[in-house]
Amino acid sequence: MATEIERKFLVVDDSWRADADGGVRYRQGYLAGSAECSVRVRAAAEGAWLNIKGATLGASRQEFEYPVPLADAAAMLQGLCGERVLEKVRYHVPYAGHVWEVDCFEGANAGLVVAELELAAVDEPFQRPPWAGREVTDQWRYYNARLVSHPYRDWSESERRGDAD
Amino acid sequence: MATEIERKFLVVDDSWRADADGGVRYRQGYLAGSAECSVRVRAAAEGAWLNIKGATLGASRQEFEYPVPLADAAAMLQGLCGERVLEKVRYHVPYAGHVWEVDCFEGANAGLVVAELELAAVDEPFQRPPWAGREVTDQWRYYNARLVSHPYRDWSESERRGDAD
Repeated sequence: MATEIERKFLVVDDSWRADADGGVRYRQGYLAGSAECSVRVRAAAEGAWLNIKGATLGASRQEFEYPVPLADAAAMLQGLCGERVLEKVRYHVPYAGHVWEVDCFEGANAGLVVAELELAAVDEPFQRPPWAGREVTDQWRYYNARLVSHPYRDWSESERRGDAD
Repeated sequence: MATEIERKFLVVDDSWRADADGGVRYRQGYLAGSAECSVRVRAAAEGAWLNIKGATLGASRQEFEYPVPLADAAAMLQGLCGERVLEKVRYHVPYAGHVWEVDCFEGANAGLVVAELELAAVDEPFQRPPWAGREVTDQWRYYNARLVSHPYRDWSESERRGDAD
């Protein structure tokens, strides 16, 4: 078990690419959800994982992750996730002593680019890179579990601008 | 991954106890469910497991199971399963070349005793012991995932008799 402390920001331009690694393609699906948690399966070239996250939104939430055989993950993605599957390429971008994760979504979420920073404590100081714009840590619609049912393609102009946030 | 082929029967008397082992107490909770599957965490004295089962009812369904640390299971049972937790004692009872599992439920499901037999193939022949009564393999209300939300205590007389089955 771990408590995940994570901040999410929209990415405003492509300047992060100069410092990024080659990226890893993830295919991930949501097996099931409840009021308390969501259960995800994620497959990449180098392995697959089952992940259980508490539903509490915001910077800090309970998280459990276990490696699973790639063949199991493929069977779950195909047979047990319904339409709740998304693809993204995740890049690692070092900046001012932290390593940021930049997710470039594909398919129905193409065009959405979100940067995440994992912190060791809620009050750990960090420097915000110039390519990181509006913070969306508390916005449910930017969470992967939500993007599978309400993809970026279907967002209204006001949702994209964040008028109501 | 495995395909679970399982038949369920009501237990009509206590005569199975003569051949049973000492039993193992399970505490299990349902993390989340969807139209396609349910995700369960189970803790016993000797270990804990995460289990994902396809929602297809009846004798054959997809199943994935992974061991997890007992401390993780305890945290999930306490923090992520809400009220969707049940306890039972599971006994193993050899009969005519097969090992049956007899589940004695507790708490809100006290009084319910269900025998399960796992088979290697849908058409594998087996002998039904005298203490195994009506088959309930296709009855959703006898599934553990359902017993947490509609416990035996709350069943109508006609549900207990199986009038509508």
